[in-house]
Amino acid sequence: MTPARGFPETEYRARLSRLQTAMAAKDRTALLLTTEPEVRYVTGFLTRFWESPTRPWFVVVPAAGDPIAVIPSIGAHLMAQTWITDIRTWRAPDYDDDGVTLLADTLREVAAPGSRIGLPSGGETHLRMPLTDWQRLTQSLPDRSFTDDADILRHTRMIKSPAEVAKLRTACATADRAFDRVAEIARAGTPLSQVFRDFQILCLEEGADWVPYLAGGAGQGGYGDVISPATETPLTTGDVLMLDTGLVVDGYFSDFDRNYAIGYPTQATVAAHAALIDATQAAFDIARPGAMASDLFHAMDKITTGGAGGSDAGRLGHGLGMQLTEPPSLIPADHTVLAPGMVLTLEPGIDTGGGKIMVHEENIVITETGADWLSTPQSSGIRILDL
Amino acid sequence: MTPARGFPETEYRARLSRLQTAMAAKDRTALLLTTEPEVRYVTGFLTRFWESPTRPWFVVVPAAGDPIAVIPSIGAHLMAQTWITDIRTWRAPDYDDDGVTLLADTLREVAAPGSRIGLPSGGETHLRMPLTDWQRLTQSLPDRSFTDDADILRHTRMIKSPAEVAKLRTACATADRAFDRVAEIARAGTPLSQVFRDFQILCLEEGADWVPYLAGGAGQGGYGDVISPATETPLTTGDVLMLDTGLVVDGYFSDFDRNYAIGYPTQATVAAHAALIDATQAAFDIARPGAMASDLFHAMDKITTGGAGGSDAGRLGHGLGMQLTEPPSLIPADHTVLAPGMVLTLEPGIDTGGGKIMVHEENIVITETGADWLSTPQSSGIRILDL
Repeated sequence: MTPARGFPETEYRARLSRLQTAMAAKDRTALLLTTEPEVRYVTGFLTRFWESPTRPWFVVVPAAGDPIAVIPSIGAHLMAQTWITDIRTWRAPDYDDDGVTLLADTLREVAAPGSRIGLPSGGETHLRMPLTDWQRLTQSLPDRSFTDDADILRHTRMIKSPAEVAKLRTACATADRAFDRVAEIARAGTPLSQVFRDFQILCLEEGADWVPYLAGGAGQGGYGDVISPATETPLTTGDVLMLDTGLVVDGYFSDFDRNYAIGYPTQATVAAHAALIDATQAAFDIARPGAMASDLFHAMDKITTGGAGGSDAGRLGHGLGMQLTEPPSLIPADHTVLAPGMVLTLEPGIDTGGGKIMVHEENIVITETGADWLSTPQSSGIRILDL
Repeated sequence: MTPARGFPETEYRARLSRLQTAMAAKDRTALLLTTEPEVRYVTGFLTRFWESPTRPWFVVVPAAGDPIAVIPSIGAHLMAQTWITDIRTWRAPDYDDDGVTLLADTLREVAAPGSRIGLPSGGETHLRMPLTDWQRLTQSLPDRSFTDDADILRHTRMIKSPAEVAKLRTACATADRAFDRVAEIARAGTPLSQVFRDFQILCLEEGADWVPYLAGGAGQGGYGDVISPATETPLTTGDVLMLDTGLVVDGYFSDFDRNYAIGYPTQATVAAHAALIDATQAAFDIARPGAMASDLFHAMDKITTGGAGGSDAGRLGHGLGMQLTEPPSLIPADHTVLAPGMVLTLEPGIDTGGGKIMVHEENIVITETGADWLSTPQSSGIRILDL
């Protein structure tokens, strides 16, 4: 069943409490957040307007008390519908002062001189404001120390609440239904660009709010990479078609793929697909609290490369949630200890020769005792279309 | 007619030449680019993989010679299909050194000690790499000066080539066709969330590659804001429905909206819509080389607010191209002089009382002698659905 849109205020209060507990432990007097997922995680502010790069948006999390939104006035009406009550606005874009003074005043209020203001600064983060405004901000508060957030956002967001897992389950089920209908849209002769368009239509018909990500490829025995947009090349008998989508339902992503043989597959394709499924299952089998991200990498890599240590993709899976990809990374160097509520993709890849690859991907959630599938795990046999 | 996908190498060489001419004038020995549109503008690298925030991507533009891509190995295959030949990769994510050393070495090669490396740093820009990596990079090159890019990217990208205008014209025509079919999907009783889903399907059916942006609203006599996602509330007779989409064809956006009355509109709604059309036309009438962005603002604001100086939206239009919104801004403070090849949105808004507004939006291109519509200009009468 699809959960109701949004979350109750208790969800946000629980997030805030976890952030503030960590802030106390790490001596951060305030957090400054600037990106879409960070702002939404704390406030519930959900809009596609982030597609416009024009305006900066800020949320300040104080050591105690509720978050403060410092945002362009165009967002005031929508922010007022969240649980946030302290909303400070300026009319952006303002070429003289695009919110910098308003933000500096807010930070002065919540962070005394000498205290530390943390920003997400490590891997997979960026500061979504102009560099010149960032320099102005830090110069206008010389007696406060701007520093990293001690990975507080990373660690807090990595553990999903039951309400978040329910939304992710809905997104994955939606994608599952779309993948089950690919026979309707893909056959020899269909240009890949048409397959991509029609697959997005299937996702929307099955209940996606929008489809922020679709990549894939098609070719005899495999494809060249996994991040390409569609070409106009028609599907041909003997092709392997791969579609990898990140669709969104109520702000939460699915991220998995499916392979399809156009006509009977070769034995090599059958074997490659079976190995990918074996690899995925091997990672699933050891996925439980206490295992490490790197353990899942090695379980898959052992099967797909014989333990050679991975491929150009760089990793064999990652976190999933309000973003298509989130920490951790399934790589040898990531020793994140799995814990209940972590949602992960398992994404092994295999070299099929001649510069081609095949990949497979499923989504799972770590439970108290092991893991649950969020996407429907596929059987060894590759799906065959257009017979 | 839809142009062929991509651009010939001559398009990229012309862009590079304009950038390097400006770099010489502004004494920038190299440009460092990190965001999707910047990277694509120089290389043609088109992928939806930017949806994943995990990996940083870099392009270095030297004072002379071709651009250098410094990118994760997962992108090597796709980048090799562009005109770029100098492609340097690392296997990301790398927790010890996520491309910083490779990038620093590249910058050392193209920028001698004492020279200036420019980054887009002003309004509407951000640095898409972790702040800690940025600090590492600048510290590892203490004898080079990292500075702003003197707005070189802003000014260069603002003038679209004829090939770019052709792509924008295709995107706008695609959205026009989708808007013409809204009667098929919206009637009293349809939940707004279903209208949003079905409208994205129309966009895809009409030829959009994907639909990165859809916002809108519906309500009696107007809507509360223009950036909200859909609610589950059904349309009701007497509502004004507004849909504002940014769809993409071959990497270029449309960005305009349409209003629809669900059943016969009130006289107030008719009058508000007519005023919005008048305002749009007034701006179009003075849009020509030599006019300023601020002139277009005032032409519209005179009609919609009697010259009060705008609204919470902050601006009455903006540039359009590889992004949903680009410079310039139609605000009083933007004195950008219009020139042939600039593509703009005209986006007046009007207060309809009771905390509600209506907005209208069209897309235009500045020509040698005036302006051309890219979207089909609407007549004063609001479209009526569900009679």
